[in-house]
Amino acid sequence: MRFGSDNWAGAHPAVAVNLSKHASDYSTPYGSSSLDHAIQHRLSEIFEHSLSIFYVSTGTAANALALTSVAKPGGIAFAHREAHIIADECGAPEYFSNQLRLKLIDGADGKMDVGTLREEVANVAAMGVHGGRPNAISVTQPTESGTVYSLEELDAIAAVAREYDIPFLMDGARFANALVHLGCSPAEMTWKRGIDILCFGATKNGCFCAETVIFFDKSKAEDFAFTHKRAGQLFSKSSFVSAQLEAYLKDGLWIDLACHANDMASDLADVFRSAGATRLVREPQNNEVFVVVKDDVVKVLEEAGVSFFAGWPPARELVLGEGEQLCRFVTSFATTGEDVRGVGELVE
Amino acid sequence: MRFGSDNWAGAHPAVAVNLSKHASDYSTPYGSSSLDHAIQHRLSEIFEHSLSIFYVSTGTAANALALTSVAKPGGIAFAHREAHIIADECGAPEYFSNQLRLKLIDGADGKMDVGTLREEVANVAAMGVHGGRPNAISVTQPTESGTVYSLEELDAIAAVAREYDIPFLMDGARFANALVHLGCSPAEMTWKRGIDILCFGATKNGCFCAETVIFFDKSKAEDFAFTHKRAGQLFSKSSFVSAQLEAYLKDGLWIDLACHANDMASDLADVFRSAGATRLVREPQNNEVFVVVKDDVVKVLEEAGVSFFAGWPPARELVLGEGEQLCRFVTSFATTGEDVRGVGELVE
Amino acid sequence: MRFGSDNWAGAHPAVAVNLSKHASDYSTPYGSSSLDHAIQHRLSEIFEHSLSIFYVSTGTAANALALTSVAKPGGIAFAHREAHIIADECGAPEYFSNQLRLKLIDGADGKMDVGTLREEVANVAAMGVHGGRPNAISVTQPTESGTVYSLEELDAIAAVAREYDIPFLMDGARFANALVHLGCSPAEMTWKRGIDILCFGATKNGCFCAETVIFFDKSKAEDFAFTHKRAGQLFSKSSFVSAQLEAYLKDGLWIDLACHANDMASDLADVFRSAGATRLVREPQNNEVFVVVKDDVVKVLEEAGVSFFAGWPPARELVLGEGEQLCRFVTSFATTGEDVRGVGELVE
Amino acid sequence: MRFGSDNWAGAHPAVAVNLSKHASDYSTPYGSSSLDHAIQHRLSEIFEHSLSIFYVSTGTAANALALTSVAKPGGIAFAHREAHIIADECGAPEYFSNQLRLKLIDGADGKMDVGTLREEVANVAAMGVHGGRPNAISVTQPTESGTVYSLEELDAIAAVAREYDIPFLMDGARFANALVHLGCSPAEMTWKRGIDILCFGATKNGCFCAETVIFFDKSKAEDFAFTHKRAGQLFSKSSFVSAQLEAYLKDGLWIDLACHANDMASDLADVFRSAGATRLVREPQNNEVFVVVKDDVVKVLEEAGVSFFAGWPPARELVLGEGEQLCRFVTSFATTGEDVRGVGELVE
Repeated sequence: MRFGSDNWAGAHPAVAVNLSKHASDYSTPYGSSSLDHAIQHRLSEIFEHSLSIFYVSTGTAANALALTSVAKPGGIAFAHREAHIIADECGAPEYFSNQLRLKLIDGADGKMDVGTLREEVANVAAMGVHGGRPNAISVTQPTESGTVYSLEELDAIAAVAREYDIPFLMDGARFANALVHLGCSPAEMTWKRGIDILCFGATKNGCFCAETVIFFDKSKAEDFAFTHKRAGQLFSKSSFVSAQLEAYLKDGLWIDLACHANDMASDLADVFRSAGATRLVREPQNNEVFVVVKDDVVKVLEEAGVSFFAGWPPARELVLGEGEQLCRFVTSFATTGEDVRGVGELVE
Repeated sequence: MRFGSDNWAGAHPAVAVNLSKHASDYSTPYGSSSLDHAIQHRLSEIFEHSLSIFYVSTGTAANALALTSVAKPGGIAFAHREAHIIADECGAPEYFSNQLRLKLIDGADGKMDVGTLREEVANVAAMGVHGGRPNAISVTQPTESGTVYSLEELDAIAAVAREYDIPFLMDGARFANALVHLGCSPAEMTWKRGIDILCFGATKNGCFCAETVIFFDKSKAEDFAFTHKRAGQLFSKSSFVSAQLEAYLKDGLWIDLACHANDMASDLADVFRSAGATRLVREPQNNEVFVVVKDDVVKVLEEAGVSFFAGWPPARELVLGEGEQLCRFVTSFATTGEDVRGVGELVE
Repeated sequence: MRFGSDNWAGAHPAVAVNLSKHASDYSTPYGSSSLDHAIQHRLSEIFEHSLSIFYVSTGTAANALALTSVAKPGGIAFAHREAHIIADECGAPEYFSNQLRLKLIDGADGKMDVGTLREEVANVAAMGVHGGRPNAISVTQPTESGTVYSLEELDAIAAVAREYDIPFLMDGARFANALVHLGCSPAEMTWKRGIDILCFGATKNGCFCAETVIFFDKSKAEDFAFTHKRAGQLFSKSSFVSAQLEAYLKDGLWIDLACHANDMASDLADVFRSAGATRLVREPQNNEVFVVVKDDVVKVLEEAGVSFFAGWPPARELVLGEGEQLCRFVTSFATTGEDVRGVGELVE
Repeated sequence: MRFGSDNWAGAHPAVAVNLSKHASDYSTPYGSSSLDHAIQHRLSEIFEHSLSIFYVSTGTAANALALTSVAKPGGIAFAHREAHIIADECGAPEYFSNQLRLKLIDGADGKMDVGTLREEVANVAAMGVHGGRPNAISVTQPTESGTVYSLEELDAIAAVAREYDIPFLMDGARFANALVHLGCSPAEMTWKRGIDILCFGATKNGCFCAETVIFFDKSKAEDFAFTHKRAGQLFSKSSFVSAQLEAYLKDGLWIDLACHANDMASDLADVFRSAGATRLVREPQNNEVFVVVKDDVVKVLEEAGVSFFAGWPPARELVLGEGEQLCRFVTSFATTGEDVRGVGELVE
């Protein structure tokens, strides 16, 4: 009953096997091997667009460096109040960019309210050198609340970005989970919506360590190569990432794994919906289930060895009753029906 | 005939197998798993000292963050003119620390001349706020020239560090190769010499990606945890590094691999010494062979598909004749006797 | 009728005369002249405490460098939502410190609510490396809303700083105006309240350019000297600041000027209180008058050539009616009774 | 006998008087006053070019921010080994830019050897992301050795900058002294030579504090305004600089002051040339005299209360004999013939 997070799982067997298979390769380093080039080519097929890719060590590095690539003096980046770049990266975007500050945008369900966003961007644009200037908009897809921006919602945000001529970035740490929820193509969820740079996460969905910064405008890559190197992110044996991604992207494995994780989340939501002592916050849209649980049931689950996150900070719009906690359960490629049923037996 | 660099090889089979074995683990992330703790324990045994460890993505990240952990405003770090932190990291130490500048120290054979070092440190110490202040000394062991500081040479440098009360760091990207050359213990080459922080490289010697910053003073670790996180270096699935290191450190594999690589370098040096068209710069002390090669022989080697580095920038004390190039050949755990013999046949 | 800001005025005649008088001095540079030392001595008398002083070019530089002097990796500084360091310094604290992020604290009348502050500091302290750590608390005295923290309010904030062992800083761009409002001594408003570092502004109150960072703990000064220099703030002809301060601090001129400015504000408030078309937001506590003015009266004032700030962003707790604007009027050492009466005639 | 430095003098009477005269002005702040605009206009007349100006607090700030305005990730700026930005600014260029590293170029007489420069720029350009990329060339005019680049020498350096498409900057802390030595126009010494950004110093030549960053390409100014503000350099009462410059630039005062200082240096050189115990390093080209002095004569001068700099670090090409010191004497607008004669009597 393992729902701590999707980064508690190891790697999918196909990924591990392929990495082992390539262990005896002898290839040029620093992203220059034929396997590295093959992955760039494969991703451009998948995204139906020419692109440049850079591997980085973590999602934090991906977001921070993507933002750094567009940052200007006095620049302000806009993101939802709960966004990973604001709440969970220890200031990495500010550190790496040495330029950006982050402006928190409110909005229900973990999504920026587009009206609020437009107003705040306009406020900053009016402030001149004292206040700074609008520099970027970043969406997390899916959000930290386990919701997914619809294509229309992305369009509305993109319109603000275009109006103020600022880059539009996507933190896709759980990219695949959002994609299969929307049932659209990678292109439709990204550059067709106006996304300029995508942080494409594969670690949570079945790899060991495979985060990629994707530029849809290849002309940005020349400059970014220096940022990437001096940020300590130019892996010498870059093939170790490529080998993971080769397996991950082959025959749609990454889509299958995300479907599985989302399905498991849906099943777990069913369990919580039908149980008396739990109150589902919302229908899961990715592989995260947010549920309000009574204190004594939390205790039962913990004592049974279920790994999950109790005492999750509730969003502003959620009101907890006395003796209730918000809990987060995360499924992954490795979650089993048995895991789900195990929780079901405990909460019934 | 693969002598391009030790980062052109993949990973040793034992490392790859162990990583696969742990792929199905379910463990807490961010360096908190039992396997992560086991590696910290294992390294403290090997180094005969309590220590704190942090995994990072690259040697560049290791060096830059180690330096960052000690950096002060106006600080100047001293390193050999050819040191990786100066010549090959695109300014990462300056970028991450936002404090340090690097002062180039000359010296033969890739080693800082300790007299020059002492003089330059004294100069900076005398300059006050306009010039900055001494902040760190960093040695590369083995050096970029393939030489190894003796224990006495390290002691002499450590004395300067102590005199000016500044930290003493070691870039050990090829740590094992230096260790087996000296035939001493890890403790003798590090904290017993006054080293405060070690960048312990395992990637070049048989891992996919396993660089570790080691603090011999555990009290520094609390603060460094924030630097490490906000530098985008806190791996979520940290076990993927630990699993590599478990195999790497088991039963002295890491020592065996370095011995093999050094032996291959020694054999290759024999080849060059006995050949007419090549002039060995010096007896190899690690797994790198520097040799002066006539242009036409370089051409022969390249046409035969030998991977190596021609046109290596010569140190100040080396004089090249007309039609000669300095070349670097690097052996690794994966180098075979056949590789060496192949080169031998070409240069004879 | 000049109420644009207190930085629209030039310098008080006594300050200008003294600067001219010292123009023919020949003295050692970089803060080392006898006049520089005399000012340090004079300030230590005024503050009844040993201290170290550093001149900087602007209030922004003062705040940013004071914060930089205490900043740690992952550090978060807490300040009121409207604080100058958040709203008006284009990210200077983040830029100079390369460490800090700023956390906005709400509270009425421009003052941090101490309950909210305590809660937010506790939240950050609980987040570990992902969220960062509490690093500093900064108060603006007087606040951006023209209010003044009472000594008891400062004590309550200091208690939070002490509890979490983080530095307590004061942005005193209008220090004198707050001081004369409270009628206490400089010591009572600063180090006796637990203030560690004070940004002591004199520019707005009668100097040309005289901002000073004051450390009550002299041991911090040695390190700060490097930060100060490399921030481009070590004036060569530092006597040009000392000469201004010599006149400013002599015979209580600075207190007299602040009293005058505050009195003028009080008189202006009387004007607005008795007028029909204006609604005083609160009794002024320093030299700033915030008043709600009907649009047509704003127009009358502007057409008469009164300099003031219309359309000031209202605090959350202030509700503006239809056709109303929040306006700010700032008095200074140079404001005359005639200026005040002139406005009176226009708004009656 | 005051030869410590030109920043030991106060301000010229005309500058001080004009500042006093403007003390009672009431004007808009932050560089927006009519006086501020008048200075921008006056400078554009003097330089015969449209330009944008930004006042900063120190020469260090000027250089660091000028470099920051052009800096790119991995960028390397080239300057002479003795340049102020390398030896005397405590790392300010690296700090503010968070991008640049400085590469030391050798050359006699304090001037970069253009052959060496070209070679080093080419080396860096060939190194790719590991080594960084050429980003700027900075000349100090006059140099730290008191020499002046001829127009032809500036052209030769500009050719390298153009070839590698990198900005060409001039540190003109003593701009006027070089100008009157060459006897050319400001335009001829700057943009006609390819200079993109000039740090125009007036502090040393008669002002209290008046350093200006001048962009000959006005399109750069919009972006730089944010850098300038967040660097704490946007003076509120900017007129205090403009008032100094108004007097400084009026009726060629600045040229007269520089001529006087240079003449005094020439006279002092005559004194040293004819004395037995001193050896003139070279004919002065600006207001600095470098002279080799016997230890006992140094003692005589010091005991007589002459302020000058003994023990100046000699350039590589200068060989000092036993019991000799290199000394620097700096003249200024305030130096008198009596000062010079006083030294003459002591060294005869």
